[in-house]
Amino acid sequence: MKSYRGLAGCLVSVTAMLGIAGSVLAAETPSPADLRDAALEHFEVIPSMVPAVSGNAVTREKVELGKMLFFDPRLSSSALISCNTCHNLGMGGDDNLETSIGHGWQKGPRNAPTVLNAVFNEAQFWDGRAEDLKAQAKGPVQAGVEMASTPERVVEVLKSMGDYVQKFAHAFPGEADPVTFDNMARAIEAFEATLITPASRFDQFLEGNDAILTKTEMSGLELFIDTGCASCHNGVNVGGTGYYPFGVVEQPGAEILPPDDKGRFAVTQTATDDYVFRAGPLRNIALTAPYFHSGKVWNLEQAVAIMSSSQLGAELDSNQIKAITAFLMTLTGEAPRVEYPILPVSTETTPKPAAMVAN
Amino acid sequence: MKSYRGLAGCLVSVTAMLGIAGSVLAAETPSPADLRDAALEHFEVIPSMVPAVSGNAVTREKVELGKMLFFDPRLSSSALISCNTCHNLGMGGDDNLETSIGHGWQKGPRNAPTVLNAVFNEAQFWDGRAEDLKAQAKGPVQAGVEMASTPERVVEVLKSMGDYVQKFAHAFPGEADPVTFDNMARAIEAFEATLITPASRFDQFLEGNDAILTKTEMSGLELFIDTGCASCHNGVNVGGTGYYPFGVVEQPGAEILPPDDKGRFAVTQTATDDYVFRAGPLRNIALTAPYFHSGKVWNLEQAVAIMSSSQLGAELDSNQIKAITAFLMTLTGEAPRVEYPILPVSTETTPKPAAMVAN
Repeated sequence: MKSYRGLAGCLVSVTAMLGIAGSVLAAETPSPADLRDAALEHFEVIPSMVPAVSGNAVTREKVELGKMLFFDPRLSSSALISCNTCHNLGMGGDDNLETSIGHGWQKGPRNAPTVLNAVFNEAQFWDGRAEDLKAQAKGPVQAGVEMASTPERVVEVLKSMGDYVQKFAHAFPGEADPVTFDNMARAIEAFEATLITPASRFDQFLEGNDAILTKTEMSGLELFIDTGCASCHNGVNVGGTGYYPFGVVEQPGAEILPPDDKGRFAVTQTATDDYVFRAGPLRNIALTAPYFHSGKVWNLEQAVAIMSSSQLGAELDSNQIKAITAFLMTLTGEAPRVEYPILPVSTETTPKPAAMVAN
Repeated sequence: MKSYRGLAGCLVSVTAMLGIAGSVLAAETPSPADLRDAALEHFEVIPSMVPAVSGNAVTREKVELGKMLFFDPRLSSSALISCNTCHNLGMGGDDNLETSIGHGWQKGPRNAPTVLNAVFNEAQFWDGRAEDLKAQAKGPVQAGVEMASTPERVVEVLKSMGDYVQKFAHAFPGEADPVTFDNMARAIEAFEATLITPASRFDQFLEGNDAILTKTEMSGLELFIDTGCASCHNGVNVGGTGYYPFGVVEQPGAEILPPDDKGRFAVTQTATDDYVFRAGPLRNIALTAPYFHSGKVWNLEQAVAIMSSSQLGAELDSNQIKAITAFLMTLTGEAPRVEYPILPVSTETTPKPAAMVAN
């Protein structure tokens, strides 16, 4: 139902926005203050503090443990692939590949989304099948084409190292058996909640700096709102909330929208969810090419053009596309600084890396 | 010739040491001061400062650039594998696999040596085929089973990003064309020179702390010297200098010493270099299982037993093996603290990741 509601909301907004668009585009460029007022109806400043996570207090102990787990390749059965392999914190929180390479060099089904600011998304994965980062973290660890491990194996790995056992005990005080697959996910979620990128130039604009954006960028922001992009890409993450069909007006070609990936339909088994995906969160979009769930588009201007025609039926000219792209480039925030963790040493009882064969 | 000289030196020393061994083992346990004096004839305290590198000034700019390159998976053609993939700074500077997994999930030929303290080795790789870390760094980048790139591709990748171009210019001032494959290797060497692990308990013992080692550990150190281990495993890195046949006295089985890997013979094409390898540097050995160039032995005590019988003809009892192992565990130093680097963003001209197929 969420996707349908999202879609309906989108279409209504698009209509409303397109109505406004005519007048705004015809009028003079609005003042920074007027543009800010319009923008604040759609977007929120990203917090510079780690947000609270529902049902999972973000304690220092949990974050420190979660960081170790995030970087530990022994969560995969090959002992080669860590969360950071596909969600590289040095590369915008993803792997900059069309789709990820996983266990046995298998090709993943969809483009890896960034982990940066993922805590602000309404749900995780392109189809929203995980309601939060805790649920998300359990997916790739078990997926055969990704890390190819099992909850039992992960727990065996973690329990084999005294340092991990101690850190789980500190992160989950009072629990009789703290080293669990669920707590692994909780710790990773707590660490990931710290991976936020405040202070983008866009945020500085929202916070009152009239001079921080160029005229082109402001014009792009105005177009982003007026063309209707902001109807789906809004909120703190400029997206990441609500589900929409890829191709509201016109479906892109099979290269960009492969026919065999029906998106959220696989989650809900509802016909109206055919080719429905979560609206991509656009923060740090300049760092996370290639684009779309298929990862087939490397050029941000091209992605903007495809979105505007397929979702909104708007045929923007090249200056308008460049302006929107310029605006999107202002969404790059300050990357979190992370000290590379020193991991506990494997012991005699640590399960050995799985056989080298892929399947 | 180096290997032959090394071997000759080893055999002479072994004879001498075995002579001493009888008397020392029969005598009372030496005082810490006497043991220290004996140890200082074989070993050096690891410096706590970054050492100078011949022909490559270790400047801050070079180290910072080298760190980025070390962690950048775009040095591989898949854009997935970085130096840190196999020389994981959180896991003792290696990958803790028998042999590494490389491009297309191919199995590497030998166990990945640790990058920690590698700057103190006389030469690099198990067969010493690279005279320094600069030469070493060029190997895996090009090896088809590792990163599978080419110098031309790497330079194209690096030149496609203005931030890298600027950092190369700062790291190699005055050069007309600073972005070169050679300079990539120089920067990585400079960074790797900082990856030293001072202040192990063994070093603290060498520096005069009588109480830092247990009796068992001191007994293990004494045995390590007296049995003859220190004849090959000596110097700052407790190894890493000189070449010796694997199986001076008795060759281990094919499982541990695969017959088709003739070691240094492939470098020198000299019959006396059959199955000759560089003596493994033993610092942080507790962190770098599995052991030997084949990576077939996961247990350090078992590795000690194999070494003592195959290299020295010494049949140590289990207490002696445990003591030597306990000593080896004191070689774990303080890991370098590294902030995970934020890498430059790929551009339109950055070569795209190579096709997913392995071969």
